[in-house]
Amino acid sequence: MVEIDKERLGKQLRFIAEIDQAKSIYRQTLLLNGSRQENDAEHSWHLAVMAALLYEYTDDPDLDVEKTIKMALLHDIVEIDAGDTFCYDPERGTDKAEREAKAAERIYNLLPMDQARQFRGLWQEFEERRTAEARFAAALDRLQPIIHNYRTNGHSWRKHNIRKEQVMERIAPIADSSRVLWEYAKHLVEEAVKKGLLQE
Amino acid sequence: MVEIDKERLGKQLRFIAEIDQAKSIYRQTLLLNGSRQENDAEHSWHLAVMAALLYEYTDDPDLDVEKTIKMALLHDIVEIDAGDTFCYDPERGTDKAEREAKAAERIYNLLPMDQARQFRGLWQEFEERRTAEARFAAALDRLQPIIHNYRTNGHSWRKHNIRKEQVMERIAPIADSSRVLWEYAKHLVEEAVKKGLLQE
Repeated sequence: MVEIDKERLGKQLRFIAEIDQAKSIYRQTLLLNGSRQENDAEHSWHLAVMAALLYEYTDDPDLDVEKTIKMALLHDIVEIDAGDTFCYDPERGTDKAEREAKAAERIYNLLPMDQARQFRGLWQEFEERRTAEARFAAALDRLQPIIHNYRTNGHSWRKHNIRKEQVMERIAPIADSSRVLWEYAKHLVEEAVKKGLLQE
Repeated sequence: MVEIDKERLGKQLRFIAEIDQAKSIYRQTLLLNGSRQENDAEHSWHLAVMAALLYEYTDDPDLDVEKTIKMALLHDIVEIDAGDTFCYDPERGTDKAEREAKAAERIYNLLPMDQARQFRGLWQEFEERRTAEARFAAALDRLQPIIHNYRTNGHSWRKHNIRKEQVMERIAPIADSSRVLWEYAKHLVEEAVKKGLLQE
């Protein structure tokens, strides 16, 4: 008979059930087929695959891609409590950090203490954008929505009357991780302006 | 000015756009809040997080958890072409392998050749269930749906009149990777029978 630490496994399973709610947190961006808004769980999946595919483009030679993948998987879990904050909403933006810190406190602490510390630490590192892995995860998190907006006829840009300079400010962190992806992102924004999907 | 291999980046971005469709492939299991069926992208995200959290329970001491995470992320991409095959559907099951191999051929080959080989190789390895990583990914892929079914009042078991022995056969591969998760899975099935969610 195998020995099971039921308390530990119970905490892990509790967390795994809790994060199912990320599948019901909807973002502003649409799926590429335009059928509906994307949710946090599938967005995080997409970023994790992008990290696995695109890490050759970071300018940080020591990047640990597996760590970036984990950050991508976990980065939006706080939104289960804090909700999705639209990145161009200045009002909701002001207390975003506070709401998310409170959420992290509750949600990560469902885990056994060692894992709570480890996973919350990854999220904190992502937020601070100081390490190679955090910068790359942030770059992908800025790149993915502009690809989706570009390919869905500028949906959330047009809906909220977003201007080019707002997008450029939002995506600037891409340049801190990858010159290649930054060139590509700038190109996409220029094309979006030319096509009238984004205001000059 | 940074040099960009536009053909390579173009192929990678093409693949990244293609796999967005996994967000529209719906499975039989419901979200834990019962609101709708789960899709392949968010299911894959959930498995990847489970791998990061539960790998301490594998009986394979040399397991490379990062590889398991990548397998979890990619394992259902073939369903973009092949569709979700309900695991208790014997008719659709017969040509599943063929449909999925054809899908893998098309979808992974959108990538540059080195990455096509690498990622398709991970999928193939997952399917064959011979390595520690593939066995663990398979175990999680069998465990997650029974947790969801148990917690959503036996939804897809009851809908399709599934019997206990069918579930036990389906989840048997969990035992090949983790005695702890196997004990837990058996316990969940027993509880489901007691509660009348699953036929004896």
